[in-house]
Amino acid sequence: MPQVIDFRVDPANYRHWQVEYAGPVATLSMDVDEQGGLFEGYELKLNSYDLGVDIELNDVVQRMRFEHPEVKVVVLRSGKENVFCAGANIRMLGGAAHSHKVNFCKFTNETRNAFEAAEQDSGQQYIAAVKGACAGGGYELALACNHIMLTDDSTSAVGLPEVPLLAVLPGTGGLTRITDKRKVRRDIADIFCSIEEGVKGQRAKDWRLVDEVIVNSKFNDTVSARALEFAKNSSKADTDAGITFEPLARTHTEDSVSWSVVSVEIDRAGRKAVFTIKGPDEAASATMAEFQSLGDQAYMVRLCRELEDAILHMRLNEMEIGLWVIRTEGDPELFTGHEALLADNADHWLANEVRQYWKRTLKRLDVTSRSLVAFIEHGSCFVGVLAEILFSVDRSYMMDGEFEDDDRALATIKLTEANFGPYPMGNGLTRLQTRFLGEPEQVDAAKAAMGNALDAQAADKIGLATVILDDIDWDDEVRIFVEERASFSPDAMTGMEANLRFAGPETMETRIFGRLTAWQNWIFIRPNAVGENGALQRYGTGVRGEFDLDRV
Amino acid sequence: MPQVIDFRVDPANYRHWQVEYAGPVATLSMDVDEQGGLFEGYELKLNSYDLGVDIELNDVVQRMRFEHPEVKVVVLRSGKENVFCAGANIRMLGGAAHSHKVNFCKFTNETRNAFEAAEQDSGQQYIAAVKGACAGGGYELALACNHIMLTDDSTSAVGLPEVPLLAVLPGTGGLTRITDKRKVRRDIADIFCSIEEGVKGQRAKDWRLVDEVIVNSKFNDTVSARALEFAKNSSKADTDAGITFEPLARTHTEDSVSWSVVSVEIDRAGRKAVFTIKGPDEAASATMAEFQSLGDQAYMVRLCRELEDAILHMRLNEMEIGLWVIRTEGDPELFTGHEALLADNADHWLANEVRQYWKRTLKRLDVTSRSLVAFIEHGSCFVGVLAEILFSVDRSYMMDGEFEDDDRALATIKLTEANFGPYPMGNGLTRLQTRFLGEPEQVDAAKAAMGNALDAQAADKIGLATVILDDIDWDDEVRIFVEERASFSPDAMTGMEANLRFAGPETMETRIFGRLTAWQNWIFIRPNAVGENGALQRYGTGVRGEFDLDRV
Repeated sequence: MPQVIDFRVDPANYRHWQVEYAGPVATLSMDVDEQGGLFEGYELKLNSYDLGVDIELNDVVQRMRFEHPEVKVVVLRSGKENVFCAGANIRMLGGAAHSHKVNFCKFTNETRNAFEAAEQDSGQQYIAAVKGACAGGGYELALACNHIMLTDDSTSAVGLPEVPLLAVLPGTGGLTRITDKRKVRRDIADIFCSIEEGVKGQRAKDWRLVDEVIVNSKFNDTVSARALEFAKNSSKADTDAGITFEPLARTHTEDSVSWSVVSVEIDRAGRKAVFTIKGPDEAASATMAEFQSLGDQAYMVRLCRELEDAILHMRLNEMEIGLWVIRTEGDPELFTGHEALLADNADHWLANEVRQYWKRTLKRLDVTSRSLVAFIEHGSCFVGVLAEILFSVDRSYMMDGEFEDDDRALATIKLTEANFGPYPMGNGLTRLQTRFLGEPEQVDAAKAAMGNALDAQAADKIGLATVILDDIDWDDEVRIFVEERASFSPDAMTGMEANLRFAGPETMETRIFGRLTAWQNWIFIRPNAVGENGALQRYGTGVRGEFDLDRV
Repeated sequence: MPQVIDFRVDPANYRHWQVEYAGPVATLSMDVDEQGGLFEGYELKLNSYDLGVDIELNDVVQRMRFEHPEVKVVVLRSGKENVFCAGANIRMLGGAAHSHKVNFCKFTNETRNAFEAAEQDSGQQYIAAVKGACAGGGYELALACNHIMLTDDSTSAVGLPEVPLLAVLPGTGGLTRITDKRKVRRDIADIFCSIEEGVKGQRAKDWRLVDEVIVNSKFNDTVSARALEFAKNSSKADTDAGITFEPLARTHTEDSVSWSVVSVEIDRAGRKAVFTIKGPDEAASATMAEFQSLGDQAYMVRLCRELEDAILHMRLNEMEIGLWVIRTEGDPELFTGHEALLADNADHWLANEVRQYWKRTLKRLDVTSRSLVAFIEHGSCFVGVLAEILFSVDRSYMMDGEFEDDDRALATIKLTEANFGPYPMGNGLTRLQTRFLGEPEQVDAAKAAMGNALDAQAADKIGLATVILDDIDWDDEVRIFVEERASFSPDAMTGMEANLRFAGPETMETRIFGRLTAWQNWIFIRPNAVGENGALQRYGTGVRGEFDLDRV
């Protein structure tokens, strides 16, 4: 494995994707470099993908929103003949550690969700133009699009052959999108998921697996026509030019990573990492025009990019660091101004994109399989969207009253409109609504306190902090918590957190991360799949897997 | 292990429970016989339980509905001093096969759900009177009750210590009921689930973990008063005497089990079992009085008991039989009459109980982790509630047209009111609503066809059968399906079926079986719990578990 998996990529260096921009329509071609795998030991044949391919895809999706706001429709196609995409690379899956597999799947799921979010957030739609074999993760890519068009020829088929071929699930949302997005009848889904070779032509349409089937000779023209039609009917407003995401600078030491306003200090012996988020140094721009002229250096953009990179870096590179402590430092009033500019201009395309980006980044935190805790210390800056972090983490500890030899401003929490709507969780509720499912009147109490700098006593009264501690207790209590958490089974923590974090309604997102992923995790460590004689290990040998026959 | 785990128990022989009946209030005392474990190798200390204890509990809950309809409130208490219930027996869990553990949890979950169903279905409420330690599965028992009363003394506490002590989850609904039934704030839930010793007194109330905290000296009196108050305010109507569930007779051969109207033939080489349900021989009773006079011999009661016993028997005793084929034989018209008597008298207490029993039994089928298929053959009897089976199974195959040398009546499906409301799935929808999520107009088409005997062509048109086959194709196609299913990984089937069966809305039930169970399944096979140095194996040795630290 490479020393560090790096999520920062530059379009100039893409190995697997090409994007052509033509006004409101962008064409995204998947053309995976067989030799471009992230790890040794496999070739990315037939447009199969590994994490490296998906890192580039995530970058495309992200830049499409910020750098190309003129794009209303993205056409996803293959750059290869006869194959659309064969899905996740089997040899990579067979050789990867369980923890890598699971985090790889989480990231790919987030990218697929970002396809769907593009329409919900910004009216940007995805069309899958499927020519050639479209199997497993390949079909899951198509499923994440708004519209699926399939060529009617002898080689083009959509399929989810994971179960019969590999004895694992279509785990990148496949099963969930089949039942809940495309609403395929369950017995037909059962047949579909048992067919190795997939489903072609009209039958794919009849089974609700694709939206259109088009004869090969007319396929390209029809795709172009459909893209223009979607663009014409798009709800997305015409906008001026986007902003550019320049390469993100960061510095490493053995036990730390630092960006401009985010840093992570790793305590390997204690199995924890401390994330520090710094508030802005300067006042916010006065107008969105000024904000936009700053490009990716506007504080709210820069912070979000750095926080996202920190989350992804730590998730994939530091598996043994089971506890993330999140703290902030800064001037709450200054931060309030930066956030308010975006809130006051929520209809401005760029303000909207920045807010939606924060929404997605907070969701990444929600589904991160690490114990999360916030320390609300003196001098901290938990305001609005940063206060959302307090309701994303598993617990928070807040300093109460003066601390000896500590001349920082007293710890406060300040709620803003950010905490009451614009950043819903995957379950569709705000974090405060989820937090107070049993005491909905507390959401009103929180709303009434909007704009106030709430000290520990006031925050505790509304239920915003988990534990408030004075100078006498802080060090001991916090230390005990950190040590206790490190002593628990990482698996039990993962399962517990996955169940406690998402009360209330379920959505396709919560199902994908909660139910589908949980089953896949289980299957991914069963000998029937990954054992020496399991189907995943034997794939390609011509010998089928041998199975322990016990049902659970 | 004993040769056969038998779900048929007789109150006269209970080893672990006592029930006292006093008019509208029944007192159910848990007093587990330490030496009464179902398997060798452990003692059921401190009111801990194994499957045998839960089989008796399920029997109590069931008889309460049919034999004691006068009961409006059930008080659940401990028959031991200083301990309410210590939860599932750890040594039993440590020693059991994974497949047993998972099926044990499924059954205990069904029983806990039956507590809650008792109120929803029949207005029968459960009060947990907690004195002494109430931990893990013990607290999950209390959580399934409608009202939890806790003694305020130094030994009485509620707790979910699974995570810190055993590195597994509170998997019998614990995490789900904490967040979604009792709506405990998620950060408080996080603390609660990390505390080995549990939570006492007022704090338990403040944290929404119990409904009442009562000083020890007034506890018994307050419980009695509360039970009478609940009974007085109960919505449950006063009824005449119940009917008695006599011992259920069945006969075994090596490869079959037979009851009066249900039989199961096991094909071990083919890894499949064929369930045959026989229609009634005689016309239905004319009145509910006549029906009630038949007691448990009324066809609709007898069939449901036998079908439930068959499901449970096959689930726990025949783990390697991965495919269940369900077929029926009988006169659809006769069956229609039996079902109609209950539907026409749905307000009659016994008709209601029988229908609710069918609801619960069909739900058992929905969550059974075996591939389920129905063969709709000539001479079959898929009417109303039996037709529900067709929409519970993963697929159905239906005979189309005349078959050579087959003089049975042509295969038909007949829908009745049973298919449009009284038997919802765990997700709250009817099976037809779930089936046709993508084509809701098909539910209307099905409704319009109610009462008609639909042959294969007609059933296919509405989408009621998965595959219809004529005489030429039937044998081959059915054989290929059966062989193919047997060739798939049992784990992949389990995961796939769990994801495909429950489209649409989620409820506490679907979360317990879908999400909580999936995570627990995973944790139950991770070395951190069940490995030689895992926490579950080391429990009681004084040495903590050693953990692989990788997070997923």
